[in-house]
Amino acid sequence: MTVFVHPAGICESSHVGEGTRIWAFAHVLPGARIGRDCNICDGVFIENDVIIGDAATIKSGVQLWDGMRLGDQVFVGPNASFSNDPFPRSKARPASFMQTIVEDHASIGANATILPGVRIGYGAMIGAGAVVLNDVPARSIVVGNPGRIVGYAEAKELDAPVRDRISTKRDGPRLIQFQSHLDTRGRLIAVEGHILPFEAKRFYYIDQVMAGSARGAHSHRRCHQLLVAVAGQMKVAVDDGESAYLFQLSGPEVGLYLPPMIWSMQFGYSIGAVSLVIASEPYDANDYITDYAEFRKLARLHAARD
Amino acid sequence: MTVFVHPAGICESSHVGEGTRIWAFAHVLPGARIGRDCNICDGVFIENDVIIGDAATIKSGVQLWDGMRLGDQVFVGPNASFSNDPFPRSKARPASFMQTIVEDHASIGANATILPGVRIGYGAMIGAGAVVLNDVPARSIVVGNPGRIVGYAEAKELDAPVRDRISTKRDGPRLIQFQSHLDTRGRLIAVEGHILPFEAKRFYYIDQVMAGSARGAHSHRRCHQLLVAVAGQMKVAVDDGESAYLFQLSGPEVGLYLPPMIWSMQFGYSIGAVSLVIASEPYDANDYITDYAEFRKLARLHAARD
Amino acid sequence: MTVFVHPAGICESSHVGEGTRIWAFAHVLPGARIGRDCNICDGVFIENDVIIGDAATIKSGVQLWDGMRLGDQVFVGPNASFSNDPFPRSKARPASFMQTIVEDHASIGANATILPGVRIGYGAMIGAGAVVLNDVPARSIVVGNPGRIVGYAEAKELDAPVRDRISTKRDGPRLIQFQSHLDTRGRLIAVEGHILPFEAKRFYYIDQVMAGSARGAHSHRRCHQLLVAVAGQMKVAVDDGESAYLFQLSGPEVGLYLPPMIWSMQFGYSIGAVSLVIASEPYDANDYITDYAEFRKLARLHAARD
Amino acid sequence: MTVFVHPAGICESSHVGEGTRIWAFAHVLPGARIGRDCNICDGVFIENDVIIGDAATIKSGVQLWDGMRLGDQVFVGPNASFSNDPFPRSKARPASFMQTIVEDHASIGANATILPGVRIGYGAMIGAGAVVLNDVPARSIVVGNPGRIVGYAEAKELDAPVRDRISTKRDGPRLIQFQSHLDTRGRLIAVEGHILPFEAKRFYYIDQVMAGSARGAHSHRRCHQLLVAVAGQMKVAVDDGESAYLFQLSGPEVGLYLPPMIWSMQFGYSIGAVSLVIASEPYDANDYITDYAEFRKLARLHAARD
Amino acid sequence: MTVFVHPAGICESSHVGEGTRIWAFAHVLPGARIGRDCNICDGVFIENDVIIGDAATIKSGVQLWDGMRLGDQVFVGPNASFSNDPFPRSKARPASFMQTIVEDHASIGANATILPGVRIGYGAMIGAGAVVLNDVPARSIVVGNPGRIVGYAEAKELDAPVRDRISTKRDGPRLIQFQSHLDTRGRLIAVEGHILPFEAKRFYYIDQVMAGSARGAHSHRRCHQLLVAVAGQMKVAVDDGESAYLFQLSGPEVGLYLPPMIWSMQFGYSIGAVSLVIASEPYDANDYITDYAEFRKLARLHAARD
Amino acid sequence: MTVFVHPAGICESSHVGEGTRIWAFAHVLPGARIGRDCNICDGVFIENDVIIGDAATIKSGVQLWDGMRLGDQVFVGPNASFSNDPFPRSKARPASFMQTIVEDHASIGANATILPGVRIGYGAMIGAGAVVLNDVPARSIVVGNPGRIVGYAEAKELDAPVRDRISTKRDGPRLIQFQSHLDTRGRLIAVEGHILPFEAKRFYYIDQVMAGSARGAHSHRRCHQLLVAVAGQMKVAVDDGESAYLFQLSGPEVGLYLPPMIWSMQFGYSIGAVSLVIASEPYDANDYITDYAEFRKLARLHAARD
Repeated sequence: MTVFVHPAGICESSHVGEGTRIWAFAHVLPGARIGRDCNICDGVFIENDVIIGDAATIKSGVQLWDGMRLGDQVFVGPNASFSNDPFPRSKARPASFMQTIVEDHASIGANATILPGVRIGYGAMIGAGAVVLNDVPARSIVVGNPGRIVGYAEAKELDAPVRDRISTKRDGPRLIQFQSHLDTRGRLIAVEGHILPFEAKRFYYIDQVMAGSARGAHSHRRCHQLLVAVAGQMKVAVDDGESAYLFQLSGPEVGLYLPPMIWSMQFGYSIGAVSLVIASEPYDANDYITDYAEFRKLARLHAARD
Repeated sequence: MTVFVHPAGICESSHVGEGTRIWAFAHVLPGARIGRDCNICDGVFIENDVIIGDAATIKSGVQLWDGMRLGDQVFVGPNASFSNDPFPRSKARPASFMQTIVEDHASIGANATILPGVRIGYGAMIGAGAVVLNDVPARSIVVGNPGRIVGYAEAKELDAPVRDRISTKRDGPRLIQFQSHLDTRGRLIAVEGHILPFEAKRFYYIDQVMAGSARGAHSHRRCHQLLVAVAGQMKVAVDDGESAYLFQLSGPEVGLYLPPMIWSMQFGYSIGAVSLVIASEPYDANDYITDYAEFRKLARLHAARD
Repeated sequence: MTVFVHPAGICESSHVGEGTRIWAFAHVLPGARIGRDCNICDGVFIENDVIIGDAATIKSGVQLWDGMRLGDQVFVGPNASFSNDPFPRSKARPASFMQTIVEDHASIGANATILPGVRIGYGAMIGAGAVVLNDVPARSIVVGNPGRIVGYAEAKELDAPVRDRISTKRDGPRLIQFQSHLDTRGRLIAVEGHILPFEAKRFYYIDQVMAGSARGAHSHRRCHQLLVAVAGQMKVAVDDGESAYLFQLSGPEVGLYLPPMIWSMQFGYSIGAVSLVIASEPYDANDYITDYAEFRKLARLHAARD
Repeated sequence: MTVFVHPAGICESSHVGEGTRIWAFAHVLPGARIGRDCNICDGVFIENDVIIGDAATIKSGVQLWDGMRLGDQVFVGPNASFSNDPFPRSKARPASFMQTIVEDHASIGANATILPGVRIGYGAMIGAGAVVLNDVPARSIVVGNPGRIVGYAEAKELDAPVRDRISTKRDGPRLIQFQSHLDTRGRLIAVEGHILPFEAKRFYYIDQVMAGSARGAHSHRRCHQLLVAVAGQMKVAVDDGESAYLFQLSGPEVGLYLPPMIWSMQFGYSIGAVSLVIASEPYDANDYITDYAEFRKLARLHAARD
Repeated sequence: MTVFVHPAGICESSHVGEGTRIWAFAHVLPGARIGRDCNICDGVFIENDVIIGDAATIKSGVQLWDGMRLGDQVFVGPNASFSNDPFPRSKARPASFMQTIVEDHASIGANATILPGVRIGYGAMIGAGAVVLNDVPARSIVVGNPGRIVGYAEAKELDAPVRDRISTKRDGPRLIQFQSHLDTRGRLIAVEGHILPFEAKRFYYIDQVMAGSARGAHSHRRCHQLLVAVAGQMKVAVDDGESAYLFQLSGPEVGLYLPPMIWSMQFGYSIGAVSLVIASEPYDANDYITDYAEFRKLARLHAARD
Repeated sequence: MTVFVHPAGICESSHVGEGTRIWAFAHVLPGARIGRDCNICDGVFIENDVIIGDAATIKSGVQLWDGMRLGDQVFVGPNASFSNDPFPRSKARPASFMQTIVEDHASIGANATILPGVRIGYGAMIGAGAVVLNDVPARSIVVGNPGRIVGYAEAKELDAPVRDRISTKRDGPRLIQFQSHLDTRGRLIAVEGHILPFEAKRFYYIDQVMAGSARGAHSHRRCHQLLVAVAGQMKVAVDDGESAYLFQLSGPEVGLYLPPMIWSMQFGYSIGAVSLVIASEPYDANDYITDYAEFRKLARLHAARD
């Protein structure tokens, strides 16, 4: 099996992998590099400085301009649009084009628009018609114009409150219920230090998050954390590299314990939401894992050791 | 006259009706079935499991995927985008594709996006750039991302209050003014039974309608109704199968009488709106006509009898 | 037993009933008429054109000016203040003074202020420090400045939903649960005619009630009614002449059935609240009983007949 | 020097302390017990079951009913009104009257109204015309109808941010500034553990405080605390038994450190305010001092030791 | 005719004017000075450092403390309460008492509370039960706790828009309609310089006025002004020394022209209201008349000259 | 050099300028007129009644329908969509198609949608994925669905307050700080006439601007203006024909002085924003320059004269 090019298609590149098919009215320029087993549908246009991994699908009406980088098994829906110049003017070619990166396993829905310079994370899902202005963390689901993060792909939604471990590993993430005292003077909620599975060394709180934005999207190597929605509400995706779960933090009486080597993303903040985080370690940039693919590798090693 | 295929177009199907034209860089796969007098413009792509009625227009840059069903005189604007997989992943072909149905006389504006599985009703009008997530009732006008119902195609807008019949038929739909008593304790609005053109047997009220959603979109065979906006505001499209009218119900002092054999859709609900309906009959599922084409046929018979 | 006047008190009237006591530094002018068994405490001042019923208590620091009319068993707390001129200017005596009426069994709390011309209904309870600007229906509880109706004296608060009869009489007032259908298009709540204990002949709805105001405060002789909070919330006091109950109507899925010969007052309206009433009779002014004392007499006869 | 009674006054009690004066038209019943050096002004009425401490001032137009207990140096302004029956009805005497307690050094403004059963704390200041429904913590300033806590008597207001010690004692209360990071994703404020003057062992947060309510009003014996307004705003009164200070916490970038043996009260909460507290000790009921007089004694001993 | 003192009253002062009557249980201390034709009702108490003008009425239950100054024809309703120490503590007599001034023709309603140091302006009207915290401009009507300015005594309310002169004098105050241009981009309202009856030399705008506060309450000698409610709404009392009128400025399309020698007070500001003033003169402190009595005299001279 | 047509492209027009290139699968109908040095990319379709200026770029997936008029150096991004029928129905061809005009130097981002009949002004920038419903002023930046004006192309953002000249010309635009007086009665901000660089002859204020709309977009020949945000906030683009600047007016204490021969556009209005303008001249229609190209020519002459 080798490359298939439809009689009405034009393929000028010799860097196309085995099993890839190029259909009618598609046009591939000489510099493009395309992996194996890809499907380049009718009417697709691919410029020169473009790299596509293996097993990608590019549906009709899509153009891939200089500077596009697509990983393995990426799906680009029909009429989805990219560009490489954030402020285009005719005859005013920029010194260099911006790179747009779509990581492995990500999908882009029909007629979506991806602004130049954006990075679409591993396994992300861009909804049909969405306009993506900002980088998209791994596995995020994005919809709307402007694009807002509304979910975490393939995550199981959990009913709150869930008090038991949600992981099969020892000391997995779990919700912790606090004591709440409500009387006519107000409500007091106490987090006794002894109910934390770690000693608190650092505290931070987050507010003024725009609707549709996300925080987190990383794992810690050693740091344990407790998240609480002290005002408003938010969602937390929790991912052990194998399965992912969604928690809805809707009030200050419950905290979410996050042990090390758990990838987590927070999103779906209500207006005025404030999240408090209690952490077991001082700030240390080296404690963060911010690359999802690297996290998955390490998480598997970590799980194997258990 | 027979099928026209531009020399730079490709038509592999033999199920194309007389008078249909297929233009340059368009590509029709063998399994597609296309009616008579259609116009398939430059660059259109049509897959196999696609059925198109008569006299449809498919503008440039449109793809029709397996599972699309388009009725007679459907218009699909340039670069409008469909899809058949709600959560696409490369190389992960679903067991079956979702059907998307566009009923007779509906139009889809330029660059609109239609999510898989949606049904676009008879005569609906999807605005340019709209992203349609949900089924669209007959003759609805939809705009925005996400798509919201904002009108009823070809309906005449009526100034409220209009107290006379808006129909040329006896006992047609009309606004009824109620007596209102306002004092320092609040406002009381009375609907004396004798001013209703029927005896009340059932009451229901509707609230929590999302902005952009619609209710109704059906006719009754025997049931008379009175609609009142007891809180907030809403619009009511009233259609006798021949002409359509738009009422703005903007306060509780006016009710809209709807006789049987009138198709009606409510939309444009303000936040917190509540509509009260007083009905002449107990609930009876057989009294509803929910197919607009069937309604039009029956309404013509009904009108002829008058 | 006869009238007691403390040696340091002054009583110039000869129209004081048996058993009444007048204490030190109190001063009763000649024209005042005071019933039997009253208690006129230290420092009270009573002008000429004043009538007080039997068994009333007037605490210290109170003045009763020309035009005051107090019923039987009225309680006036210490330093509570009345006046008889709404826009007083020194040396500008009005042509006539406004009457202020306090009906039988009503109580006025310490340091409350009653504006001239107000009528305080049977059994009402004015809270300490309240400033009363408007007439107060029978048994209402009023607090604050300006005074707001916040309760119904001696009513039992009932947990909603209560579906059984709350009265020991046949066909007493009760809550009725309706069927509710919620989906993505909104919520529809149906009141099928056959679940009503009467045939509907009239409908009215009430909105724009100011916080702190009340509606109702009457009974019907023959008319049955169903009350529903179609938007917002309100409280309903229900009184059979013997016992009183408080219902909280907090949503449209429950209606309150009110049979004839039940006194009812609605209050505690939230902002934007709308109440719908379905009635068994056309409007008839003669069907209303608006005097609470008369209602109590008729209700006892009615109960005796059962 | 002995008791002075004005010729137009009446004193029937023999339990009146030396130096106390009773003025014209005042009336003291036989059972009342009044301390030394009190001033009972014109027109005051004092019933039997009343106890008043030393050096109190009772201005004109005040009545003290059975059940009133007033401490030393209490001031009661003119026409201020008490009562001892929460739901008074004429001729319906309750089984027992409610006690109202006014602690040492408290003042009650002109024309204020105190509901029965309320305790007014040590040194509190009730504003003129206020209507007091609830207990009042020590030194609170209360105004309005209903009464709201709006200040702390004799506290000095401090401009924020004040970063130095506000006390002359070592390790006194002080504000601590945090680092704030604001970007398009939101704002992150970090409290690194090493900037706290203690190790964190307990955390709690308080929300839903009604406007006009207060929290705290106690001291700790050993526990250190850090207060932060993570949402909204609040005021904190800080009292070392000698001087008192007022802090306005108006944003999450500044925390207030409270060492042991500092009395503190929080009030003036904005709607939606949330305060976070980080504490140095687990919860221990014995660590609390909730009696202000006791606190003052201990604080003086504590200060003497320093 | 001479001073009348009731046998049960006590008058120790010899500075009481002819025709004044002092009733039972009233008590006037030796230093008090009271004008002619006053009425001092039952139970009133008047201390030494008190001055009262002619023809005043002091109703029962009122005390006038050291430092009170009441003008001619002042009316003080029953149980109205004054004080002279803003932060009273028993046995802590301030160095000097605060003066409270009630100007000529002012009235104070039943049970009102006047804080120490307040000045109640000429002809003001304090409502029953009001608690007055701040100075009250001439002729203001004040109600509530805390007291809010809600009217201007004896002013005629005018329907807007009134385009003609409201005064019988040349060039009197009047409303001026501006040209407004509304389209989909917004509204533009133009004040052409030539439609102003003066040349503009100064501009100022006022916002953040608390509900219940007032601005103005003065006249200019030479300065002309134009007032516009550019955001929100407000009321303007306009007084030529003879008659007073009330304008409701409810939108930016109408301005109120105020010529010199017109007294004006602005109040009833809605939340967020902003008023713009265009003035004919630079700021000059000598141009202001802030004493209402002086204004009335000058206005009469001014009117006589016309 | 002459016209280049790719072997797989179709050019049926003979009105194509020198140096223009037409790429594969593009199709130009016979009536189209295209200028010099244009780039017509793969898959573009151009109907007959279309005029394109010189040096334009039309990216892949774009169709230009009858009625489109594009100026010089226009850029149309990939898959951007036009249409010429506002309410398209299949087989219902309108009597005439609407014209859509894109002026010189304007750019349209990837996948944007332009409604029929819209005029896109000189140098405007339509963001990727935007849906443009209304005319777009010169140099406006438009994003979103529906499209909103959010910027002014190539303008420099200035930090407020900037008190010096922002222009190299004498008497350029600049911010002026006013004096502000805040007390308990509210805030008063005075603009003394002598601090204005001109005599005030006209005033106007603008409110109710919809979010996303713009005002202004013109220059004056002789009129000087001062802009103040008396309520809310807004942005002002200021353009001297050479450079452009952006001011953020965020409060009433600062005004923006605009001399003649400065083009200005206001946008980014907050809800409830009100801008006041003080102008040096009466209204004169001839004083306005509303064509941006004409303004640039005159501004250069004007600058040369300086």
